[in-house]
Amino acid sequence: MEPRISLVTLGVRDLARAKRFYAQLGWHGQEVQETVFVQAGPLALVLWDREKLARDSGAAVGPTGGFGGIVLAHNVRSQAEVDEIVAAARDAGATVTMPPATTFYGGYAGAFADPDGHVWEIAHNPGFTLADDGSLVLPRFGGGEP
Amino acid sequence: MEPRISLVTLGVRDLARAKRFYAQLGWHGQEVQETVFVQAGPLALVLWDREKLARDSGAAVGPTGGFGGIVLAHNVRSQAEVDEIVAAARDAGATVTMPPATTFYGGYAGAFADPDGHVWEIAHNPGFTLADDGSLVLPRFGGGEP
Repeated sequence: MEPRISLVTLGVRDLARAKRFYAQLGWHGQEVQETVFVQAGPLALVLWDREKLARDSGAAVGPTGGFGGIVLAHNVRSQAEVDEIVAAARDAGATVTMPPATTFYGGYAGAFADPDGHVWEIAHNPGFTLADDGSLVLPRFGGGEP
Repeated sequence: MEPRISLVTLGVRDLARAKRFYAQLGWHGQEVQETVFVQAGPLALVLWDREKLARDSGAAVGPTGGFGGIVLAHNVRSQAEVDEIVAAARDAGATVTMPPATTFYGGYAGAFADPDGHVWEIAHNPGFTLADDGSLVLPRFGGGEP
């Protein structure tokens, strides 16, 4: 299994609302068969009905809402961008779960939950290089194994 | 907010177990400060303690286990690869939630939950092109908006 992710699918309760939210933030997608696909670099973000998503993957639906145990991070090049994006997300209907602040690793980050509770961290981490195309390149951590 | 994802962080209850599971599937990472970082193309998969992850992002921890409402997909180039990867995941300790089978969209896919319940779909979708470097390129869906 090559280390790569092809799609990140967010289960949503109201597709139109989710589509509007992401479009307002600049993530414009194509809607086909009640599914929204947004190209995000080399992968796609997909918005799809939460129950169908669970059924399709054989997962137990469980309680809706609450923390699903996954956080998506969007890294940017400055603290100002963190502030701007968190403010834009609030304007688009997100709940700010963590106002932008300095982090324990020496960066600056804030977090919000989208209308379905999916959590995004918006971070400026001086230790993580962002290439011109936005790719994140991990550093060689001292003492880590390759 | 540019449409890109920098990190996908999976909250885990047992870091060593999660690290072993992903390493067995070929996702080798660097461990630093009780966090495992795996470079996955232009982003990183991160394994981190679930409670710390929730606290760090201001999310309510909620019930552990169950479906978090997000599915990660790994697309491959053949049906045989789907079978191989799902079998390898089972061997590594995953729960197969959907044995590989033909899908409603004319592809072939199976799904499993990792030891922490995070769901992966392994799919061969003839309608989605995979570039040589594994990037997924969405088609122009007929009738969809750009």
